[in-house]
Amino acid sequence: MFGKVTIIGMGLIGSSIARNVLAHKLAKTLVVADASEEVCKKLVELELGNIVTDELALSVEDADLVILAVPVGAMGKVAKIIAPNLKQGAILSDTGSVKVSVIDQIKPFCRSGIEIVPAHPIAGTEFSGPESGFVELFEKKWCIITPLPETDVRSVEKVSEFWEKMGAVINIMEPEHHDLVLGITSHLPHLIAYTIVGTADELSDDIKSEVIQFSASGFRGFTRIAASDPTMWRDIFLNNKDAVLEILQRFTEDLTAMQKAIRKGDGDYLYESFSKTRAIRKAIIEQDVGN
Amino acid sequence: MFGKVTIIGMGLIGSSIARNVLAHKLAKTLVVADASEEVCKKLVELELGNIVTDELALSVEDADLVILAVPVGAMGKVAKIIAPNLKQGAILSDTGSVKVSVIDQIKPFCRSGIEIVPAHPIAGTEFSGPESGFVELFEKKWCIITPLPETDVRSVEKVSEFWEKMGAVINIMEPEHHDLVLGITSHLPHLIAYTIVGTADELSDDIKSEVIQFSASGFRGFTRIAASDPTMWRDIFLNNKDAVLEILQRFTEDLTAMQKAIRKGDGDYLYESFSKTRAIRKAIIEQDVGN
Repeated sequence: MFGKVTIIGMGLIGSSIARNVLAHKLAKTLVVADASEEVCKKLVELELGNIVTDELALSVEDADLVILAVPVGAMGKVAKIIAPNLKQGAILSDTGSVKVSVIDQIKPFCRSGIEIVPAHPIAGTEFSGPESGFVELFEKKWCIITPLPETDVRSVEKVSEFWEKMGAVINIMEPEHHDLVLGITSHLPHLIAYTIVGTADELSDDIKSEVIQFSASGFRGFTRIAASDPTMWRDIFLNNKDAVLEILQRFTEDLTAMQKAIRKGDGDYLYESFSKTRAIRKAIIEQDVGN
Repeated sequence: MFGKVTIIGMGLIGSSIARNVLAHKLAKTLVVADASEEVCKKLVELELGNIVTDELALSVEDADLVILAVPVGAMGKVAKIIAPNLKQGAILSDTGSVKVSVIDQIKPFCRSGIEIVPAHPIAGTEFSGPESGFVELFEKKWCIITPLPETDVRSVEKVSEFWEKMGAVINIMEPEHHDLVLGITSHLPHLIAYTIVGTADELSDDIKSEVIQFSASGFRGFTRIAASDPTMWRDIFLNNKDAVLEILQRFTEDLTAMQKAIRKGDGDYLYESFSKTRAIRKAIIEQDVGN
């Protein structure tokens, strides 16, 4: 598909893309780059690319496709380092969970002739690092692409095809809309999961050990989400602040209403609230993609 | 094990107990009772007991063990109906997710010589009704027993053995302590999941359909919890009000602190909060029971 592909940032997502590029032969040459020497050592052991390097600037030379898979907060810094070395016509894509902020960070460094194609694969696990990636991660999962007005449609098609070959299903969206939808479906749930596990973490040690012991009663699912990469999630909240605060506000209002219903013993309100949520569950388990 | 066992309330839990009694021959006679005629019809079809009846008062005659598997809010009403017909020395147990309130509801109707052994199996799925039960539901799951001071230790042992034969692992606890621990591990997570799915449900239809579409990014896990039986959960919150409101208060404070950190762009606070939650996850996945 491509002559040379460079992936920068070799965590769960980056290393899963690399595994796909190798497995499905999506590039003649695969360069995998990471600023951490330690990660690079692992990459050599794992044989995850034709070239392993911690020199980000050099890694993108002659690349047809460059994918930034670093935390959202590091996108601008990396773009600044690599942009002068990008060849004319190169596609610069990313995998960030926030799109408006990533575009704002990257765009100033890209001269005309660099094709920016922001992307976000809706896939992940609670595990981090290059050793946790796997080929099937994107299988039947959404990849949202949020092109800029000036992005060439052929570049969008090439990136779409690249992700489809990895098993993903493409959805095209405005960057602002992406950040709102993901704020609701992903960022708020993670914030709440981190918070409730943190609340439990501050309990006295004896209660905490029982919380762990009896976690199957509901708590456990939250701990899986709250075990996600802290750097990644810090950056997401700092970079999608407005959408997250807006939806958090609504959630807090609804939670206050629940609290009041419990305090007043308003069983009808509780019953009605707990009944209507079943329809969403049904719609979710009936869909094919993303499950 | 027992001559005659009566299970009242044949939903997910009751019907799973019945399946175990039959599969492991834990009683000579199994009576399954439910106030709903419709449920009784299904019970006959499913062949879940030797006797199927909607006459709760008659169902407990001569029973050695009676298990109330009805919603927590209905325990007192059912106890009132059946108590006069309980034989001397009968064990009256239940499966309620709240213990103090259930004991308070049941106890006034039980004359001396009725052995009250409250129990709570920490097991369940998002599905309800007699057809959703299965034999393996309690396998390697906790069953918490909260005896009264006056409960005969031999009755506790008999109920423990009964649950162990169904695959459960027993933990003995004070009723008050149970309600606090479960308030944290189960009731608060359910309240939050119901709330966040409710918040999403109130969004405009186009956003809602996208929330469903991209739910894999975190939201989906909440919808599973929020699909649990509304009657059961209404009753739990009404009957464990104090513990739930207390832990909800702590959670709300922590969430407010998170909100402030996002608003102020305090990355250090977020990073630290998101890092410490990983230890709890690790402890949970390392344990044998309840996973």
